[in-house]
Amino acid sequence: MTSIHDVRPEAFSYAWDHSTAPAIEVESGDSVLLHARDASDEQIQKGSTARDVAGIDFSHVNPVSGPVFVKGAQPGDALAVELLEMRPGDWGWTALIPGFGLLADEYPEPWLRISQIEPASATVRFSDQVSLPLRPFPGTIGIAPAEPGQHPILPPTRWGGNLDTKHLTEGAILYLPVGVEGALLSLGDTHAAQGDGEVCGTAVESAMDAIVRISVRRDLTITAPQIDLPATTQGTPPGYHVCTGVGPDLIEAARDATRAMIEHLGERYGVEHQEAYALTSVACDLRIHEIVDAPNWVVGSFLPNTIFI
Amino acid sequence: MTSIHDVRPEAFSYAWDHSTAPAIEVESGDSVLLHARDASDEQIQKGSTARDVAGIDFSHVNPVSGPVFVKGAQPGDALAVELLEMRPGDWGWTALIPGFGLLADEYPEPWLRISQIEPASATVRFSDQVSLPLRPFPGTIGIAPAEPGQHPILPPTRWGGNLDTKHLTEGAILYLPVGVEGALLSLGDTHAAQGDGEVCGTAVESAMDAIVRISVRRDLTITAPQIDLPATTQGTPPGYHVCTGVGPDLIEAARDATRAMIEHLGERYGVEHQEAYALTSVACDLRIHEIVDAPNWVVGSFLPNTIFI
Repeated sequence: MTSIHDVRPEAFSYAWDHSTAPAIEVESGDSVLLHARDASDEQIQKGSTARDVAGIDFSHVNPVSGPVFVKGAQPGDALAVELLEMRPGDWGWTALIPGFGLLADEYPEPWLRISQIEPASATVRFSDQVSLPLRPFPGTIGIAPAEPGQHPILPPTRWGGNLDTKHLTEGAILYLPVGVEGALLSLGDTHAAQGDGEVCGTAVESAMDAIVRISVRRDLTITAPQIDLPATTQGTPPGYHVCTGVGPDLIEAARDATRAMIEHLGERYGVEHQEAYALTSVACDLRIHEIVDAPNWVVGSFLPNTIFI
Repeated sequence: MTSIHDVRPEAFSYAWDHSTAPAIEVESGDSVLLHARDASDEQIQKGSTARDVAGIDFSHVNPVSGPVFVKGAQPGDALAVELLEMRPGDWGWTALIPGFGLLADEYPEPWLRISQIEPASATVRFSDQVSLPLRPFPGTIGIAPAEPGQHPILPPTRWGGNLDTKHLTEGAILYLPVGVEGALLSLGDTHAAQGDGEVCGTAVESAMDAIVRISVRRDLTITAPQIDLPATTQGTPPGYHVCTGVGPDLIEAARDATRAMIEHLGERYGVEHQEAYALTSVACDLRIHEIVDAPNWVVGSFLPNTIFI
């Protein structure tokens, strides 16, 4: 059994930059514990009000913990990140932030809700009326871009980042294309519950400890994030392989997700291109994972594993 | 018990037009059996090849059976259409049609696959390697537009039509805004299996008999299709209420679906607008139902019924 590397809590960044010094170096196959801060970087507290939302300093949002240097990871490899355990706290926040979100023009006023998180019953108490299933996951998880310099933390890219993909719960495996030696994995923006799309721009935002197992995969060639969802993942009984498209145009992101799925069907199951394209049409589901982290959106194509005889 | 009205098989159209004479008149609450033709209008047969796909006459695609005049339905009402039973035949077809589909530019050659439909095992045999769950539904279901004249059959609109929404299987209830007296419901383009998106432009296309129960609802005010998915619908265990957005821009369609869901949360559960917007973000899933029936796409916002205490 491998021990779990504990990454020091004060190792976090507000931008993607492959020149950031690693917080830790690990071997392929090792497990790592990261202490993710909430997306407001503690600017929102349990006793905060809508007034505090209006005052958020955006230069300090979405800190990501890490980076983790994975020995042996080289550009062109894939990094497999298995979500082993997500440990949420006992509260989270959801806000309408002026100027942010799918309906920003129609909701100009700040608004805040503090929810209670109840791990024992696996629920999030959003209101007297609403109890959400607790589905903790990292909204932001990615590796350092190949391109030098500082890159903003808010938009996701093909290197991952702010994917806001609610399916990355315990048991899921995220595959990321490696851009630089050591990959330099970071995560943050942890969410206790979220719908596909994250339409108002925030989920149930909560600081969280995350344990992930990180492995280098030289047998996979991917150009954007992909995900394996096991049959045991809540809400996805058959198990799925997911190919994502990330970019500023939803139609093109859907095309990229579909193209990646066609390649996957060819490489993994030997299905030729025309048949694979038809198969994406009759069997795969398109979902919008996030539509608020401008300028890039994320679309996923979901292949149910059970259709193969 | 109400008897089932059998609509004569030769009553079908290739366009939406509210001046089309009704095939039958029924009372609110009646059930109707419609004999839907396949989307090629029998141009593709069990023994067809890719060559036949290239020769398809598009003026004869997607015939819709009906229309059914529902007594008492008036503009401003909603029409509730419950899918009681879908009876597929024993085969279906899937094609890559030149110039059609999400990746049309990359797949210029026609291609055809005939699948065996096996109702006894509830499967569709797509290939030696792939067996799909049999999930029969009408790809096209809608009412006559309020606007006079002939309207093309291919793009869906807020009156429904070619929604290509795979979730409209047995047990689902589709709500449509009524545009003209009698509503004039028609359906066709029946599918044995499809993924969300229908990315190549065809599903497993199959002629099918459909039994639907049609009711006038004066208590609902909707401006685009909505759907109730019961807990028993396959693949959707918790049960969902779905609000759709239909239009030529995916982002705007997602906005429309979200706005409709916010209204629904207010009307049905008394949730005020800001909180409802936040709730769509933490609990509702955006899915792309179709992305090929140019110029209009369909996005659905899925509310799980079980979150309400």
